[in-house]
Amino acid sequence: MRVLGIDPGLTRCGLGVVDSAPGRKVHLVAVGVARSAATDPLSTRLVRIDDAIQAWLDEHEPDAVAVEEVFAQHNVRTVMGTAQVAGLAIVAAARRGIPVGVHTPTQVKQAVTGYGKAEKAQVQSMVTRLLGLDSPPRPADAADALALAICHLWRPGGAVDLIPTQPTPAQQAWAAAEQAARRQGRGHRFG
Amino acid sequence: MRVLGIDPGLTRCGLGVVDSAPGRKVHLVAVGVARSAATDPLSTRLVRIDDAIQAWLDEHEPDAVAVEEVFAQHNVRTVMGTAQVAGLAIVAAARRGIPVGVHTPTQVKQAVTGYGKAEKAQVQSMVTRLLGLDSPPRPADAADALALAICHLWRPGGAVDLIPTQPTPAQQAWAAAEQAARRQGRGHRFG
Repeated sequence: MRVLGIDPGLTRCGLGVVDSAPGRKVHLVAVGVARSAATDPLSTRLVRIDDAIQAWLDEHEPDAVAVEEVFAQHNVRTVMGTAQVAGLAIVAAARRGIPVGVHTPTQVKQAVTGYGKAEKAQVQSMVTRLLGLDSPPRPADAADALALAICHLWRPGGAVDLIPTQPTPAQQAWAAAEQAARRQGRGHRFG
Repeated sequence: MRVLGIDPGLTRCGLGVVDSAPGRKVHLVAVGVARSAATDPLSTRLVRIDDAIQAWLDEHEPDAVAVEEVFAQHNVRTVMGTAQVAGLAIVAAARRGIPVGVHTPTQVKQAVTGYGKAEKAQVQSMVTRLLGLDSPPRPADAADALALAICHLWRPGGAVDLIPTQPTPAQQAWAAAEQAARRQGRGHRFG
């Protein structure tokens, strides 16, 4: 199984492809960073990163895509661009029918080092060791993307929350009731 | 000039198309809301909203797209989905060569009511009056999308920040220096 890990970002978007093999072994296929210039308009930057994601999907044809879950972090200035890139990555994969898994930084650390509060350096050290590399992938966003891919392979049921599934009868009933309520009361409805 | 206003959202995404005419008059072309079910996987929801945005771009062929700027708001639970949809909207327009303008809620209120801290009801009332409608568009997201489109038409230089422009000589020099520094020091570079 081949997983493309995507550490979303507008200035630097980490991309890492890992293959799994029997016995919990993982192999590095490709790693890199897509960049966009802060001097460019937002639309140009988003298209540039989206182009890179599409190119990686074309080239490596992963069986699954793992995206880091974005939270409203301390750095409010960059979090919106990060969320926008995450949305592009999820849709790019979903439109190709590739299952998408979203993992939190804590889940990634837990999967790779066994400790959810591990330091960044420890995660990079483990990624380097697990993939049998001579030195840690640089920049850090690239190592994070590989850690995401490894997490996706190892985390039990990691991708389940985002694989399109058949809704349960209870969910179907709830959705139907909600839809009926909308049609009655709220007017405009599209699509 | 025709503008598609998009009030981004994962559960409800407002869409409104407005034509401008001489004498600062504006005309309603279409208004609606794209929805996705909270019971669906995130990837399915994002694709559904993206489909709707693409369909509106196909049908109405706007000359510009106006998107509400997303901030890290109070509602942390929904802001990430909102930012993801905003990213999809910006890329959908940019890939068709349509200029994108991003406007803050304050700018929209200022443009439509003349007062940047206007109440939501006042904005809806003005949108209703400016477009010569019998009653305010429902739900509120649809009215917000129309207000965005009107703001884009009326706000001086509103779209300039996102129209791809030729960088200045200083910006070009800075970008070249940054790129050279990356090539020397940081290893992996993609695209």
